[in-house]
Amino acid sequence: MLTIELINDAAARIRGHVHRTPVVTSRSFNEATGKEVFFKCENLQRAGAFKIRGATNKILSLTDEEKKRGVAAFSSGNHAQAVALASREAGIRAVIAMPDDAPKAKVAATRGYGAEIVFYDRLKQDREQVAIEIAERDGRVMVPPYDDYLILAGQGTCGLEFVEEVTDFDCLLAPCSGGGLFAGVSTAAKAVNPQIRCFAVEPDTADDTRQSFEKGEWVSIPPPPTIADGLRVQSPGTLTFPILQKTAEDVLTVTDEEIIETIKFFLFRMKLLVEPSGAAAAAAVLFGKLPEDTKRVGVILSGGNIDAQLLSGILAQ
Amino acid sequence: MLTIELINDAAARIRGHVHRTPVVTSRSFNEATGKEVFFKCENLQRAGAFKIRGATNKILSLTDEEKKRGVAAFSSGNHAQAVALASREAGIRAVIAMPDDAPKAKVAATRGYGAEIVFYDRLKQDREQVAIEIAERDGRVMVPPYDDYLILAGQGTCGLEFVEEVTDFDCLLAPCSGGGLFAGVSTAAKAVNPQIRCFAVEPDTADDTRQSFEKGEWVSIPPPPTIADGLRVQSPGTLTFPILQKTAEDVLTVTDEEIIETIKFFLFRMKLLVEPSGAAAAAAVLFGKLPEDTKRVGVILSGGNIDAQLLSGILAQ
Repeated sequence: MLTIELINDAAARIRGHVHRTPVVTSRSFNEATGKEVFFKCENLQRAGAFKIRGATNKILSLTDEEKKRGVAAFSSGNHAQAVALASREAGIRAVIAMPDDAPKAKVAATRGYGAEIVFYDRLKQDREQVAIEIAERDGRVMVPPYDDYLILAGQGTCGLEFVEEVTDFDCLLAPCSGGGLFAGVSTAAKAVNPQIRCFAVEPDTADDTRQSFEKGEWVSIPPPPTIADGLRVQSPGTLTFPILQKTAEDVLTVTDEEIIETIKFFLFRMKLLVEPSGAAAAAAVLFGKLPEDTKRVGVILSGGNIDAQLLSGILAQ
Repeated sequence: MLTIELINDAAARIRGHVHRTPVVTSRSFNEATGKEVFFKCENLQRAGAFKIRGATNKILSLTDEEKKRGVAAFSSGNHAQAVALASREAGIRAVIAMPDDAPKAKVAATRGYGAEIVFYDRLKQDREQVAIEIAERDGRVMVPPYDDYLILAGQGTCGLEFVEEVTDFDCLLAPCSGGGLFAGVSTAAKAVNPQIRCFAVEPDTADDTRQSFEKGEWVSIPPPPTIADGLRVQSPGTLTFPILQKTAEDVLTVTDEEIIETIKFFLFRMKLLVEPSGAAAAAAVLFGKLPEDTKRVGVILSGGNIDAQLLSGILAQ
């Protein structure tokens, strides 16, 4: 079970290995939305995203014998970099399965951290199966992107820091793919203040969690076309969905166009680079998806890893 | 004369009107340069550049009678936005002369702050003359971009904050156009610690200050073609150059290509948007222009205002 104790343990374990990321505000964002909005900058986290929190918590929890065998993981990008970096720092070897259309910057960074990469076809192969085969072949420990309580607890430290630093939030928003960040953050926030309203945010074309939340059971969707490459999961996680059912007030959706406008706002007004997945929760606030009676709002900017080519495309729109 | 007392006065006067900008570091920048580098983020300053410091100090020092008449200014961009914003906040009217090829984002922002804009042809008209005519016609007070001790003292507060926050700098670097930022920052730094070595940085095609520094007298150059639109001044300032002659150890130059690589480094590695002028000093460090015996280095990132179009062009290179 994901508890605040597990998140507190994770916070103690990963301290010094990950950044305590800054919280920033923007007068112009507040003026544009009529709310008081705080941004937790996981785009400034090590390896460019919150993922290093969970990966570090998991890897530092391995036994010496497990560390010797190394780890395996599958990821469209940020989790890959996180596992690669956390592994290098722990002195263990990592093999990562990545889709062959993963952003070049993410592939290069993962390789740069010393991990071995195995590519798979996102439309034809099951990514989890690819990684499991690698793990079984070499006796490696799988570091899953979300369905693991040590991973969830690690991601939860982001929410813990956020509610420690800013008090009296009305609500918190986090982007949602497999749901690890949202599960961790909402669990931490509600442990500190059960009144905080938590919203998960997805691209409207990748709304597996919204559909599942409404139906009350896991719904699976075809590979989604969204620009937010980190949010292309096809169904909610096994461990994360039941947590979200308890902690989420609602699942909000945003269009790719809204994400793009939000990226431009961060870039040109706040001088901050946020990747499409990382901008989804902020887009929900900027484009008025929150209930009107929310005033003091916390938003997780979950990552900042983006290709020059993709960014060029965004600027051209 | 520009003194530390004048800078201290400015700091007290503008407090609450401008941001105390953050100082950031980057493990990867340090690894790439073999130095310990600290960045003062004036790109995160109000109106996106250090210029608001001097403009605010000047405008808050006006008499009530002067405030009633309003102000005039000339600028390729950041000073314009700064004067416009500082004027609006002081409740006075501003007219700004801008070159007709000024970046669109800077023109739009200046207008957005409520200033009236008069365009001039950068290659045919003398910008100072244009602004002086406006000032004389309407009885407005000129807010010059650098040749004014209140402006210099305001810019100096950036250096004061920097050396207050980070101790034991070997050296400081600031980009240099008219020289206001460098004069203010170097005066503040040397007042706190006379051992700090100060370096001004220019684009190699806009090296009027380097030439002047070497020759020991004001040298004028043709309109420079550099990408750094904020550093296109053709000769050092009247007040600033004698200060620089005393405080600068050297004037370093960087190419446009080096500036572009540095912008990309900040954007993709540090998730920070810095404009070409703002990246010049950092480029000098990244491309090895500093003496080898400098280890603990302070760099002013002077601004972050950049067009989507210009940024696209940079990404394409």
